[in-house]
Amino acid sequence: MTTARADALALDREDPLAAFRARFRLPDRVVYLDGNSLGALPKATPARLAAVIEDEWGEGLIRSWNRHGWIELPRRVGDKIGRLIGARPGEVVVADSTSVNLFKLMSAALRLRPERRIIVSESENFPSDLYVAQGLIDLLGARHELRLATPETLDAALDDDVALVLLTHVNYRSGRMHDMEAVTRRAHQRGALMLWDLAHSAGALPVDLAACDADLAVGCGYKYLNGGPGAPAFLHVAERLQAEFRSPLTGWLGHAAPFDFDWRFRPAPGIASAIVGTPPILSLAALEVGVDLALEADLAAVRAKSLALARLFMERVAASCAGLGLTLASPSRDDERGSQICYAHSEGYAVMQALIARGVIGDFRAPDILRFGFTPLYTSFADVWDAVEALRAVLTSGEWDRPELRQRAAVT
Amino acid sequence: MTTARADALALDREDPLAAFRARFRLPDRVVYLDGNSLGALPKATPARLAAVIEDEWGEGLIRSWNRHGWIELPRRVGDKIGRLIGARPGEVVVADSTSVNLFKLMSAALRLRPERRIIVSESENFPSDLYVAQGLIDLLGARHELRLATPETLDAALDDDVALVLLTHVNYRSGRMHDMEAVTRRAHQRGALMLWDLAHSAGALPVDLAACDADLAVGCGYKYLNGGPGAPAFLHVAERLQAEFRSPLTGWLGHAAPFDFDWRFRPAPGIASAIVGTPPILSLAALEVGVDLALEADLAAVRAKSLALARLFMERVAASCAGLGLTLASPSRDDERGSQICYAHSEGYAVMQALIARGVIGDFRAPDILRFGFTPLYTSFADVWDAVEALRAVLTSGEWDRPELRQRAAVT
Repeated sequence: MTTARADALALDREDPLAAFRARFRLPDRVVYLDGNSLGALPKATPARLAAVIEDEWGEGLIRSWNRHGWIELPRRVGDKIGRLIGARPGEVVVADSTSVNLFKLMSAALRLRPERRIIVSESENFPSDLYVAQGLIDLLGARHELRLATPETLDAALDDDVALVLLTHVNYRSGRMHDMEAVTRRAHQRGALMLWDLAHSAGALPVDLAACDADLAVGCGYKYLNGGPGAPAFLHVAERLQAEFRSPLTGWLGHAAPFDFDWRFRPAPGIASAIVGTPPILSLAALEVGVDLALEADLAAVRAKSLALARLFMERVAASCAGLGLTLASPSRDDERGSQICYAHSEGYAVMQALIARGVIGDFRAPDILRFGFTPLYTSFADVWDAVEALRAVLTSGEWDRPELRQRAAVT
Repeated sequence: MTTARADALALDREDPLAAFRARFRLPDRVVYLDGNSLGALPKATPARLAAVIEDEWGEGLIRSWNRHGWIELPRRVGDKIGRLIGARPGEVVVADSTSVNLFKLMSAALRLRPERRIIVSESENFPSDLYVAQGLIDLLGARHELRLATPETLDAALDDDVALVLLTHVNYRSGRMHDMEAVTRRAHQRGALMLWDLAHSAGALPVDLAACDADLAVGCGYKYLNGGPGAPAFLHVAERLQAEFRSPLTGWLGHAAPFDFDWRFRPAPGIASAIVGTPPILSLAALEVGVDLALEADLAAVRAKSLALARLFMERVAASCAGLGLTLASPSRDDERGSQICYAHSEGYAVMQALIARGVIGDFRAPDILRFGFTPLYTSFADVWDAVEALRAVLTSGEWDRPELRQRAAVT
């Protein structure tokens, strides 16, 4: 039991990952619990980007596509991410945004199950995943249907007409985590393909796509991979599906021989056919720095610390904030939760703005959720202690109750 | 007539755009004639990127979406590009790659002409444009057809079954330029929509989409806009089409209220519905520097200098390289050509490698084309003089005739 800030500091002294914090640039007087929305800046990134910009682009110019291996970056960084998510070399590539990659993989999945009409997902899935499904279904003439379940009704929603099960491993709002292996197995038992969105998983906790026999996955570069705002995303196609896999986004860098400039599209072998346009080198270089840093850490240790941080957070809220209007909105069981803790509060938006004004940065998710993310490479136990103290102060003082804190910004 | 290097230097002294060259970082002892493949580095870019990375990302973290207006960047930079291509505010947005944007606009065009089956393009169009059309047609069940014409047979290819005419304004290989106003008018007379790829036009020469009553356009950020390798692309949808325009790539940032996290997709009004995922802030910031620089120049002066550079190049080749196996592969008339000059040579690949070894960087386009791009903000008349001298030296010495220069690199 941690009953004083000194106990939290003691946990930090014993933390095997503690040294990673110094590898990030974090603002002074800020407790940053929003790395699940935008990861922090690795200290190595500015120098790497300066070298890419000044030496590779400025000095090397067009020659750098070969000389500095720019053309290999999507697959090179993809393979590195693959090591974080239990994929084999050649199963992951970095390209486009998560949403665009979802479109590629959903389209490909529907082609692979041409007799089936249903995409199953969750009503609480990240909306972009559902929007992409809606856009695709609409484009294909409404012959397919999006069937929305809850975690509780998911099993019942799986019948022999399901082509694809589309789930986010860790829910963006509640942090609720699916049992990837069990859900994948049930989808396969019904003959459906399984597409995992790893936005809140990659780099945050161990994922083993190969052991789960997963089919398809996507994920995000700017959360736990610390690739920078709007970093490119990744996609995964299991080796056994690659021969049949066809993305409808057929761009020149997914061609088997782009520099032949033949007018007929012929897909590159393997995962490379999922590349579309010219890769974004500056963003890819920044992402690689974040991924390299993540690869230095033991993901089991990352997970253990994440859970310890979350338990401390819940423990401190229970001890300090009882009766102050907070309701836990995340699963309390470790094995059902990702790397974040959420509380509902009727004035959640204003409370979060007041917390941010105190330098404790989490975020708000409509309609009423305060979200706190734990990024074990740079979140400390003292951060958690201080965050809950600030939360208590905000709630007991009522300092959130000001009109300017209720005024919604463009981005919440 | 320019008959000595001193004459070229005199032209540089009289050049009203000469001062722009100092705004770019160019390598020493290099003549760079490949800005139509990858534009040069503006000297202002490294400091701007360092500020975005260290201050906005590192210090501001998630707060920068509001505080530094990250969320506005796609439309802000889009409107700036709009000023270079004769679009109205609100008609252009920066997003994704050119190929992904082509997919959005082609899909939308086919929806807007549901009774028509044909996409007309050119067999010599940039292959990615044709690949995207093929991927879309295939996805839609082969109900549509890609009809390939040449500039000469284009008129005859336009009948009442044509939904969309898809052309690149300036051909990537030959530099041949379409009459945008005339072609758009003919497409409209047949009831077809017109989609212009401005990859080799935006920033290189005056384009007036509004005056041409153009419907749809896309373009590239890393050529004449100097946005950096793999810079994000832009797309344009004419105001009059925006109410009916629907992109099939429906991501969260194209939603009318992304932060409501509603599960039903509802498109944002106007051009914003063409945004899909989270915008790539680092790449967008780099692109903005290049676009701001382009906006400082008078595009009529840019065009006049581009044509003068090209005329000097052709004049010098005629004078110095006669009988050395070069055949002009670009239109000789100014009004039929963009900002590049191409020559066919049976050993084009090795000749270009030998030229690059001498510090004159153009590029090769299969099967046999030597391509030289003129980027008037930083190409000088002396550059052109020196390039042709080097070309003559390479051809007369036979120094290209070495096995290692015939060995094709990954990127040509």
